[in-house]
Amino acid sequence: MQSRVIVALDVSEERAVNIASILGNQVYAFKVGYPLILGAGLGILNKISSQGKVIADLKIADIPEVSASIASQLTSGGASGVIIHGFTGRDVVRSCRKVTKELYVVAEMSHQGSLDFLSPRSEEIAIMAREEGADGIVAPATRPERIRKLKEVSGLKVLSPGVGAQGGSYTSAVENGADYVIIGRSITMSDNPVEALERIVSGK
Amino acid sequence: MQSRVIVALDVSEERAVNIASILGNQVYAFKVGYPLILGAGLGILNKISSQGKVIADLKIADIPEVSASIASQLTSGGASGVIIHGFTGRDVVRSCRKVTKELYVVAEMSHQGSLDFLSPRSEEIAIMAREEGADGIVAPATRPERIRKLKEVSGLKVLSPGVGAQGGSYTSAVENGADYVIIGRSITMSDNPVEALERIVSGK
Repeated sequence: MQSRVIVALDVSEERAVNIASILGNQVYAFKVGYPLILGAGLGILNKISSQGKVIADLKIADIPEVSASIASQLTSGGASGVIIHGFTGRDVVRSCRKVTKELYVVAEMSHQGSLDFLSPRSEEIAIMAREEGADGIVAPATRPERIRKLKEVSGLKVLSPGVGAQGGSYTSAVENGADYVIIGRSITMSDNPVEALERIVSGK
Repeated sequence: MQSRVIVALDVSEERAVNIASILGNQVYAFKVGYPLILGAGLGILNKISSQGKVIADLKIADIPEVSASIASQLTSGGASGVIIHGFTGRDVVRSCRKVTKELYVVAEMSHQGSLDFLSPRSEEIAIMAREEGADGIVAPATRPERIRKLKEVSGLKVLSPGVGAQGGSYTSAVENGADYVIIGRSITMSDNPVEALERIVSGK
């Protein structure tokens, strides 16, 4: 059965392809980020997309022309979804909306430093994301009350990272409104990824 | 003679290597960004670094662990300098400082959307960059008075993008305190990059 889990494949190419083949029909999507793309090249997107939906997470944060160029390369390469930052402004979101299938905008992040500059503007970023036609926002499982708030103000789907090694809980994220929960090491480092996934989803 | 110019190599791999071999000893550095790295792979850093200093500009904006992992890959791959965002907070800057030779922090950007969320916090970001030991900040030639202000509050070197296609001027950026000016298409799209560089630097 497909779960609400998005598996973050921040592992070697070999491990990523292996995990994707094992979990392909049990998770919502696979998140592919910088560490894997820099090592394996853009071709990894196609390899993973043969097993399931791919969300490319480079947290794009450049000027509109460059951001759209990156998003376009990722989409052509096989990514169904692309994650960008909202902090860089409305015109960046607009430029990326035009060249992506599914667009997700980071409204708030899971680490401590998010509180320095980003979190005070997160609600405005979430609202702007909705106004510009984004498919969802990213909000942290490490502060589950923020998932609830950011979903409430934007009305958008929420993808939530920060579960496991970073301290957030799957159950708490879902209870607070997360539509999809991003999980990395707890699954990808497990000797038995299927069992690890089941354990997390059942809240044990 | 070496100029204050950093050439942004947002072109094909073949063109990038060609431009680097032509301009290697006339510019301060070459800036290599996403579009080129995604297309050509990390190996491009080494190819360009044989001709001159390489600054990798992925505008890293992830959580501390992931940001440092990316910065570390870029440094190992041949980049002398790495550009990261500052709006993601102090802990991200600190984590990247440990794994880079030269670290540059984006304080403000050249596009319109920078004014939405980033620019109101740019001065604080610039000061934080200095406190965390960054080697410089990035501030836009499209708003040259901001170069002056951000340099004044931080005391750091300023790298300034936005000259040429985006509307900023080399002369105005330098007069307002830019230590290095980032130029892309005006040079890389020219039939005669040497002449284009000379024309820009002489303010003609």
